[in-house]
Amino acid sequence: MEFWGVEVKSGQSLKVNLGEGKVLHLSQACLGEIKNTKSSDSVCLYVNVESKKLVLGTLNSERLPQQLFDLVFDKDFQISHNWKNGSVFFYGYKADQPIDGPSYPSRI
Amino acid sequence: MEFWGVEVKSGQSLKVNLGEGKVLHLSQACLGEIKNTKSSDSVCLYVNVESKKLVLGTLNSERLPQQLFDLVFDKDFQISHNWKNGSVFFYGYKADQPIDGPSYPSRI
Amino acid sequence: MEFWGVEVKSGQSLKVNLGEGKVLHLSQACLGEIKNTKSSDSVCLYVNVESKKLVLGTLNSERLPQQLFDLVFDKDFQISHNWKNGSVFFYGYKADQPIDGPSYPSRI
Amino acid sequence: MEFWGVEVKSGQSLKVNLGEGKVLHLSQACLGEIKNTKSSDSVCLYVNVESKKLVLGTLNSERLPQQLFDLVFDKDFQISHNWKNGSVFFYGYKADQPIDGPSYPSRI
Amino acid sequence: MEFWGVEVKSGQSLKVNLGEGKVLHLSQACLGEIKNTKSSDSVCLYVNVESKKLVLGTLNSERLPQQLFDLVFDKDFQISHNWKNGSVFFYGYKADQPIDGPSYPSRI
Repeated sequence: MEFWGVEVKSGQSLKVNLGEGKVLHLSQACLGEIKNTKSSDSVCLYVNVESKKLVLGTLNSERLPQQLFDLVFDKDFQISHNWKNGSVFFYGYKADQPIDGPSYPSRI
Repeated sequence: MEFWGVEVKSGQSLKVNLGEGKVLHLSQACLGEIKNTKSSDSVCLYVNVESKKLVLGTLNSERLPQQLFDLVFDKDFQISHNWKNGSVFFYGYKADQPIDGPSYPSRI
Repeated sequence: MEFWGVEVKSGQSLKVNLGEGKVLHLSQACLGEIKNTKSSDSVCLYVNVESKKLVLGTLNSERLPQQLFDLVFDKDFQISHNWKNGSVFFYGYKADQPIDGPSYPSRI
Repeated sequence: MEFWGVEVKSGQSLKVNLGEGKVLHLSQACLGEIKNTKSSDSVCLYVNVESKKLVLGTLNSERLPQQLFDLVFDKDFQISHNWKNGSVFFYGYKADQPIDGPSYPSRI
Repeated sequence: MEFWGVEVKSGQSLKVNLGEGKVLHLSQACLGEIKNTKSSDSVCLYVNVESKKLVLGTLNSERLPQQLFDLVFDKDFQISHNWKNGSVFFYGYKADQPIDGPSYPSRI
């Protein structure tokens, strides 16, 4: 298992390429350092996978600065967010795809 | 393990068919992008499984935009929600059903 | 692994019988649909196990409609709650008890 | 895996002795039934392990009645709390220590 | 698996050296005992890994005294925080790096 952590800056998106036979376990997103503590920003997180754009969750600079996930990606994907005032950090770890298919016995 | 993510639009429900020998790990539900940040919507999530309709949880557009789960479905099921103002996204991953039954030794 | 989901109605309790060599992973409790959104109910969850009554957690109809758990029961148990205005749903999955005891080597 | 759940009463502490080759997965702490819902108590949880006293977390009778953990203890430890108005319940499960050391190949 | 818990005092940072073939699962951070309950401190957590400084999350002495993580470090790293009024405790466990690479079959 290999640590994976990235910073996605305001206005940018990040394409994540998994190597052959690898999966990425996405376990957390958190807002970067919050400078202006007076405003309360709502930040939407997105994932593009299999040609679909999905909402991954919503963070809030005041009430919800981070969120755990328990997602497994076995295909390349792209993450982005709509925070104007800072970066969002995404964390997880890479692992080998478990071998479970071929050894599974038929139930018939 | 295979990524699984779906959008269930307002007023719709989704039937999830697992393949033979597969389980689906349901790990998250989140509200789609929240446009009107002035109202606070309470959104109920439902699952239909084994001819029962169960409440899976409650989201809130202001306080609780997403919720982690740790559920394993080994049977087909149907998910739905009662949000009038947007979609709910459900996430998880598919895996093979672990083989544990036959190899388990008797305790007698 | 086998899906497990139950509704425990107001005033009732539920005895959970595990089969031989099975464990139940209890992963969530959530309140049923909340009709009166004006009152804020605090709901206490209980588990009876090994002749002890333990508090499993507290839900709140306004602030905390559900709670994740990560509990493993290898013995029969009973769950109940004190919500007067609705049902509580409990979720998890059944699995075989892992075989770890006999194969464990002595450290001496 | 074996269910583990204990009540630590006000003013008391609990020494947890693991058997040989066992680990305890500590997965939750929650406040006992809250009688006086008018006051908001902040409750600090402590763990004594390897001759150190560490703060395990903070619960709150109003906002945070329980907290998940994902801790593994392979040594005896002691838990305590500073709630004057009730018990704190700790939950988890015991399992065998996985055998991973000796079978691990050298990378050199 | 081996328990891991550290106190990082105000103004200090901690370098974590993993042994050969080990990974550290970081599962929680929590604020130390909060003495002045009148002020609400926002505390930023940082991790330095692979020559990058990343924001790990934000705690709050009033609303969010602890946060779960699900991170795996396979490289040495450094943790720090910016709380002026106390320590932050970090928890997790050490385990052997799973052997998955070499035994993985080619998909070609």
